[in-house]
Amino acid sequence: MTDGPGGPRQGTNGEGAARGATVEDVVLSANTAFYNAFEAGDLDLMAAVWLPEPDPVCIHPGNAAIYGYAEMMRAWAMIFANTPYIQFFLTDVQVRVDEDVAYVTCTENVLSSGEGAPEEGFAGGKALATNVFRRTSSGWRLWIHHASPVLSSGGRQEEAP
Amino acid sequence: MTDGPGGPRQGTNGEGAARGATVEDVVLSANTAFYNAFEAGDLDLMAAVWLPEPDPVCIHPGNAAIYGYAEMMRAWAMIFANTPYIQFFLTDVQVRVDEDVAYVTCTENVLSSGEGAPEEGFAGGKALATNVFRRTSSGWRLWIHHASPVLSSGGRQEEAP
Repeated sequence: MTDGPGGPRQGTNGEGAARGATVEDVVLSANTAFYNAFEAGDLDLMAAVWLPEPDPVCIHPGNAAIYGYAEMMRAWAMIFANTPYIQFFLTDVQVRVDEDVAYVTCTENVLSSGEGAPEEGFAGGKALATNVFRRTSSGWRLWIHHASPVLSSGGRQEEAP
Repeated sequence: MTDGPGGPRQGTNGEGAARGATVEDVVLSANTAFYNAFEAGDLDLMAAVWLPEPDPVCIHPGNAAIYGYAEMMRAWAMIFANTPYIQFFLTDVQVRVDEDVAYVTCTENVLSSGEGAPEEGFAGGKALATNVFRRTSSGWRLWIHHASPVLSSGGRQEEAP
């Protein structure tokens, strides 16, 4: 993942933060680990990112929610199989921690090939993501990922209200 | 709010659940209280729904995130002023509780007048919502609301990936 200005520090599993790191830094490292696993298309890395239970939930832009660890990992395998290349550049990163739960919100600026991209080309897109993490004895684990479409024009989408 | 088949029980503030109610029932009552406050356009009810701190976050479909209790309440005042009528019919309601944190996901089937609706008429819309609650000494409070557009066709939206 490429960090934007003021973006989160690099980290591999949310537990490797430097000595003296704040809890927010550690949560941001867990957030980075999620996007690194996505970019790498690595199921083992992705499996380590998530809280196994109670049922995690994952919502990709414009798609229905996927509930439960096993179901979600099957979905990640499908996504990885259909995504030869993907890169995330995160902006507008915000983190808040409340004891053993934390959220990170960010704009995902995405460059990808595969489904939806021109043949042998790349497609760009934007999504707004909310990622909720739980603190466990083995580090912060992702429990909720909700990403939703952002209009490239930056304008308001039709909505209710 | 009109509950769909198998939808949550009615409740006013997330603390009025019947004796013998499960923790899931109580969380669903808090979720109902949020939509009741939205429908009523009542700032006092809405103020009581949310966790004041650390900064709650609220994302309306296709819009940027709003952080912090005071900022969010200003936004609700604007929304209520521009929404003469709104009704929610929730479907696909799922709830999971992990100690002092819980999420509810649901499809918001919305009927509204005001901005975006035909003059003196109504507009319908759908959104997919993730609502995250925290357990406090005075009941479950909403900390995160992320609602995103759903295509009326039920198909996939363009996304990356």
